[in-house]
Amino acid sequence: MTMPKRDTYTPDSLLTVAVQVFNERGYDGTSMEHLSKAAGISKSSIYHHVRSKDELLRRALSRALDGLFAILEEPGAGEGRPVVRLEYVTRRTAEVLMAELPYVTLLLRVHGNTDTERWAMARRREFDHQVAELLKHAAADGDLRADVDLRLATRLLFGMINSIVEWYRPELGSVSAREEVAEAVVKLAFAGLRT
Amino acid sequence: MTMPKRDTYTPDSLLTVAVQVFNERGYDGTSMEHLSKAAGISKSSIYHHVRSKDELLRRALSRALDGLFAILEEPGAGEGRPVVRLEYVTRRTAEVLMAELPYVTLLLRVHGNTDTERWAMARRREFDHQVAELLKHAAADGDLRADVDLRLATRLLFGMINSIVEWYRPELGSVSAREEVAEAVVKLAFAGLRT
Repeated sequence: MTMPKRDTYTPDSLLTVAVQVFNERGYDGTSMEHLSKAAGISKSSIYHHVRSKDELLRRALSRALDGLFAILEEPGAGEGRPVVRLEYVTRRTAEVLMAELPYVTLLLRVHGNTDTERWAMARRREFDHQVAELLKHAAADGDLRADVDLRLATRLLFGMINSIVEWYRPELGSVSAREEVAEAVVKLAFAGLRT
Repeated sequence: MTMPKRDTYTPDSLLTVAVQVFNERGYDGTSMEHLSKAAGISKSSIYHHVRSKDELLRRALSRALDGLFAILEEPGAGEGRPVVRLEYVTRRTAEVLMAELPYVTLLLRVHGNTDTERWAMARRREFDHQVAELLKHAAADGDLRADVDLRLATRLLFGMINSIVEWYRPELGSVSAREEVAEAVVKLAFAGLRT
């Protein structure tokens, strides 16, 4: 039994705890009671910060999605040949995934059981769609191999990036480790393993 | 309420039903009652075929693992330059994943909560280890790029292959579709997307 502690949470630090519990127990399997225990504050203290469990979910998923969409606004995503922009977006997507690991992990596991989950899935599809458009432009320039279907290539590219959540642990990874992983993703996806 | 039907199950057809329920509800969340309902036969009929839920899990995971290990016994995995064998194993791993989709999906989701799950995880690691050894040999030959860490390359390669379970649906896929996907994996992983 944990003694309730004084509520010194900010909206952000409470979100950190909530996302961890969501990832461990699944969103559906998490009650306000679980959140209260994990945070070490009473349920009414939690309700002081947020109206509902759904609000925590929406804020957590927004953080992941905002991080991803922000990439598309960066100069590297908008300038130069499409294939170079595509490589940039690939690298940055991997980096954001690692920097915001618990939030992106939650996003990738959402199943569409609630309005909030469906909203997040729609935004995620929109992000994927914008990257797929970049692939199309790069292919139209003749910069991508023509013998792999573009939809398939998009899926495998995201599959490789998203698989990072299965094994990457931020406690082991400095920023330079993140950069090394992101660089490896770009090399593999665009130039391949073979010499 | 489904009326119990005559038990015409074979061990294999019962396993097909069980794996589907395991993948939908999670193994821990599946009871013999759930299996009985899904199969449309009584619990005692199920016990006529298998001793326990764990036996079904072990047989399902064995099917996935046996499929994967069989690849390593194929001539293509044992003859020729390591990099060519590695490409062969990559292609075949993707093909087996699609051919045995529900079984491999179950294998990839196992968390190590029971002896059977831990046994399966250990065998899966052994498979990954043997593929990682092939990567090492190919790298020693100078056939793989030297600027990507081999452990990282192995993880990203498996990440890309395993991500196929997230979107591939066998009802849409003929054998030729499977071959197209597997071929795309090999092209991306070894030669990259760029022209």
